Amino acid sequence: MTGINDTWFDNSIAALGDPQNQRVWSVIVSLFGDMAQATGDRIGGSTLTRIIGPIGIKPEAIRVALHRLRKDGWIESARIGRTSVHFLTDFGREQSAAVTPRIYCRTPEIPTDWHVLIDEEGAGHSTLDEMLLAHSYISIGRHSALGAGPIPANCEDLLSLRVSAINAPDWLKTRIFPRDLVQSCQSLTRDLEHLSDVPKHLSPFQIATLRTLVVHRWRRVVLRYPDLPDGFHPQDWPGIACRTRVFDLLDHLPRPNLAALTDDPEP
Amino acid sequence: MTGINDTWFDNSIAALGDPQNQRVWSVIVSLFGDMAQATGDRIGGSTLTRIIGPIGIKPEAIRVALHRLRKDGWIESARIGRTSVHFLTDFGREQSAAVTPRIYCRTPEIPTDWHVLIDEEGAGHSTLDEMLLAHSYISIGRHSALGAGPIPANCEDLLSLRVSAINAPDWLKTRIFPRDLVQSCQSLTRDLEHLSDVPKHLSPFQIATLRTLVVHRWRRVVLRYPDLPDGFHPQDWPGIACRTRVFDLLDHLPRPNLAALTDDPEP
Repeated sequence: MTGINDTWFDNSIAALGDPQNQRVWSVIVSLFGDMAQATGDRIGGSTLTRIIGPIGIKPEAIRVALHRLRKDGWIESARIGRTSVHFLTDFGREQSAAVTPRIYCRTPEIPTDWHVLIDEEGAGHSTLDEMLLAHSYISIGRHSALGAGPIPANCEDLLSLRVSAINAPDWLKTRIFPRDLVQSCQSLTRDLEHLSDVPKHLSPFQIATLRTLVVHRWRRVVLRYPDLPDGFHPQDWPGIACRTRVFDLLDHLPRPNLAALTDDPEP
Repeated sequence: MTGINDTWFDNSIAALGDPQNQRVWSVIVSLFGDMAQATGDRIGGSTLTRIIGPIGIKPEAIRVALHRLRKDGWIESARIGRTSVHFLTDFGREQSAAVTPRIYCRTPEIPTDWHVLIDEEGAGHSTLDEMLLAHSYISIGRHSALGAGPIPANCEDLLSLRVSAINAPDWLKTRIFPRDLVQSCQSLTRDLEHLSDVPKHLSPFQIATLRTLVVHRWRRVVLRYPDLPDGFHPQDWPGIACRTRVFDLLDHLPRPNLAALTDDPEP
């Protein structure tokens, strides 16, 4: 039985892994964000190695990545006896919390109300740039942006239009959903096809490894695009199928208790 | 009685005339467009002189202007015995007819349906430029334009938005209604204030002179802006008052028969 699980596990890692594009520090961020985001959550150094080792990441690479994450203020580490534990800083927790809703949203509500803001060309400062920074806007060009909901306050410098119908041309679809993003989403959708029939007796560590991989790849797709009506999607955009498969899989890989991910020697 | 009319007439010419900005060929175009637009309509050379002389335009200037208008294909001239007559070419008539509806429209219908077209920045050709040429669009910037009515066909290259509410910023109001246009409209509105109580016994020539002046100045305002909801107007735009006064006056200066404007010697 264990043998079959291990085979399924090994095949799944192979299907989901993305060896040429693996930023170790980012994989670690995905792991913490998914399984150790709460205040007080800690992961031991050898646990970390055991979870992400199977992906093909060596302990030395983990050490370097942790050093970087500490330097960037995301992670703190502490010695407990002869071992290390690692945990998110308040800053790291805030950053994770900010994107958590979007990553784990199963059925996003597509806004039905939209507006467009157009700035004056050639004007010195840009009210529009400030709006783009402060709120969720989709840039159409250097002087115009699309946003959901009603026209906000403080837009007197901008031409603001409430829109009742939008027809998106191909160049705008490509601007919002560039080819490399579409390909990432397509390849994740395809790779997830291999992960049906999740075995019942995966170990907590195996589950942690798989969750980390899935969340990591999904994060790098879903955080790159806004929720839009279907008219904005390139014809081959598999956003809905991708999301469905991500959650089907995560539902069969329930988050392990951190207590179960202790530094026990492997069986 | 004639004396009083002449005084009123002289005062009115002084109020309406625009000596520093008088393009003689353009005044002649206004005259023909207003009073001699139909096929077969002709105006004799000395009639022309008698109509626009009081404005301060000398016969030599008229000759030069006619020469230019013939060269540009607007006017044709013919000798009849020892006199000349002048008349619009088919081309001149087409040009006049194209703007006649707008000049003489008393109560324009302001469109309630609007749409915006946005072009891709940096693209080689511009679908938007073609739209702007072919249809009545208000340019917002180099890549966006506002148009009345539903979204037209053949716009797949453009982002097209049906708009249900528009808030126009000052820079757009100024773009559509530049200061010099606002000032022209204001000064015409003010000048027309002096022309109330039109006397009953103006001669056909006097009426022709006044109509030419009014139409000429009104033309140079009304053909420079599109009909828009009030939210687009600068705060000091007197468009409605101006139009009202123009038509109040024209209603009291009924177009003279061309037969009445013959080369009879002055009384």
